[in-house]
Amino acid sequence: MAADGLGKGLLLKADPIADAFRDEVKSSLAQCSRPPTLVGILGTTSAPSKFYADFTRKQCEQLGVRFVLKKVGSAENSDRADGEGVEEAIVEANEDPDVDGIMVYYPIYGGQQDHYLQQIVSPFKDVEGLHSKFHYNLYHNIRFLDPKSLAPAATAPVDDIAPPGTVKSILPCTPLGVVKCLEYIGVYNRILPYGDRAYGKTVTVINRSEVVGRPLAALLANDGARVFSADIDSIQEYTKRPRSSPDAGRKYLPHHTAHPCNFTLQECLALSDVVISAVPSADYKVKTKCLKEGCITVNVAADKNFEKDVRDKASIHIPAVGKVTILMLLRNLLRLLAYKENFDAKN
Amino acid sequence: MAADGLGKGLLLKADPIADAFRDEVKSSLAQCSRPPTLVGILGTTSAPSKFYADFTRKQCEQLGVRFVLKKVGSAENSDRADGEGVEEAIVEANEDPDVDGIMVYYPIYGGQQDHYLQQIVSPFKDVEGLHSKFHYNLYHNIRFLDPKSLAPAATAPVDDIAPPGTVKSILPCTPLGVVKCLEYIGVYNRILPYGDRAYGKTVTVINRSEVVGRPLAALLANDGARVFSADIDSIQEYTKRPRSSPDAGRKYLPHHTAHPCNFTLQECLALSDVVISAVPSADYKVKTKCLKEGCITVNVAADKNFEKDVRDKASIHIPAVGKVTILMLLRNLLRLLAYKENFDAKN
Repeated sequence: MAADGLGKGLLLKADPIADAFRDEVKSSLAQCSRPPTLVGILGTTSAPSKFYADFTRKQCEQLGVRFVLKKVGSAENSDRADGEGVEEAIVEANEDPDVDGIMVYYPIYGGQQDHYLQQIVSPFKDVEGLHSKFHYNLYHNIRFLDPKSLAPAATAPVDDIAPPGTVKSILPCTPLGVVKCLEYIGVYNRILPYGDRAYGKTVTVINRSEVVGRPLAALLANDGARVFSADIDSIQEYTKRPRSSPDAGRKYLPHHTAHPCNFTLQECLALSDVVISAVPSADYKVKTKCLKEGCITVNVAADKNFEKDVRDKASIHIPAVGKVTILMLLRNLLRLLAYKENFDAKN
Repeated sequence: MAADGLGKGLLLKADPIADAFRDEVKSSLAQCSRPPTLVGILGTTSAPSKFYADFTRKQCEQLGVRFVLKKVGSAENSDRADGEGVEEAIVEANEDPDVDGIMVYYPIYGGQQDHYLQQIVSPFKDVEGLHSKFHYNLYHNIRFLDPKSLAPAATAPVDDIAPPGTVKSILPCTPLGVVKCLEYIGVYNRILPYGDRAYGKTVTVINRSEVVGRPLAALLANDGARVFSADIDSIQEYTKRPRSSPDAGRKYLPHHTAHPCNFTLQECLALSDVVISAVPSADYKVKTKCLKEGCITVNVAADKNFEKDVRDKASIHIPAVGKVTILMLLRNLLRLLAYKENFDAKN
């Protein structure tokens, strides 16, 4: 039946389907006071991402939409890691009144870390429709929303001192529990100023999930530690962003930097004053022989991630942190209850 | 040095670290007008999750916190799938004024779908600190927040008719582009009422990511189709929740149900009027011989997921949807721009 003889079915390219929507978009554009600006953020050297970015530009230019491609990470410079600078680029585009839409070329990290990035795009600029507000509506078949519900929370303060009317943010309870353990055993030095008390310490965190490893590495780096964040396929180094760095004056930067690291895990362990492991596997073991003499080891996983003889090398070994974690959770419960009661009383 | 002779290092159990926080929590509790309620949601038969739930109960009861464990999915009944009912349990706990905190025992699905669940817990009840608002603050070392920023958006309307002051929600552009293709080729039947136009159609969607496959399966099921959602390790069946079901009167339920399915992919394909594949791999191919004669095939991946001879069986084959997707993205851009201008004018 088909003219090309390749089977009997119809090969239907998307053009005629696209045409109707192209006309709709054109007539909407004709009514705009200025051409809208779409920012594309390319953070990897992935060929399909590059292709899709070129395709976006071509489609935008044909229709009269301004397209600005922001290359960061390995897309900008081969010395940089995949995804480096993507978060900063999103936050800058969120805040830029001249930017109307943001699209990020995924996958970058894959999995939960990409999902985190999708949540920080302002819903007002989320042209891909990936924010969980929109997904929630889709899954629940809620077809309409109040535009006010898309407004971001007021810009959060970045100071160390609580501005009036604010309360402490909530920290994820497992990473916080580990920090409390490290405070107890003196890894956090109380003589140093608040916010820098892990300065001088080298820490390896094994696991980079969004629930434990990545927030823990960030917390420790924010407090001044040099942190090696090890996951199955890569090692990254997290360090506090120097106050004197050219970026330091810019708002909205994370307070630490994450760079790819060429050390092996063994080299990281040899340097580390503290080794924290949170690998959800009974088979995974940190080798005692790789540990630095006198280091501190913390097992966060439900399984035992350290060998039986870990204390031949470790000066202190904490075999489990669950009892501290649960108290952090209950502390969060009481704080949130107070926040909510206060909010309800005023509204 | 250690009394037990096992190496020289100190084995430090978490109890002394927990003690100080237990005292703090106790004295906060003494000031509460009523014991706070923590809801635990257990949706799998995972032994560590079960263990952690028992541990939570014990710790709560010792301290005088009310703990209610809600078992759903395979934790409630071996006929149910892992995670079934978790989302509904979260939404109910969000809305229940007697619930002060929610903890969900992860992993359930792993990866992005768990991350989605973490985003729908009300930040006011997120005792685990897993909402992206809190993670954003952590990564950016923002230590304080305005409690108002934790308030949920006003309850969204569930009707099909736009309530006054509302606008259309935004749909993720790739799943929406596929729906537009299916409308164009008549899979969506315009004679049927809006919201039911895919009724009578059986569709297989291969891939269950949060970006393409899962929202697409939900969209099609919300519109009345029977959908097989196939991923590497499982097949689920999505169907519209019957209006006469005992749950139908409850608010906040998704408009579809997702159940585990015992069919093989081959069995699903044999039943399917439409086969949509979005597998990001050049090696993955849907076998032409498994397709139902005269079905419709749609390739969403950048790679070709169908064999060359697909049209020997398919009546219509759409080889790519990118041109429609990009127009959905631009349409979202123009809508969001209008929403924002309207919002800015009022604020």
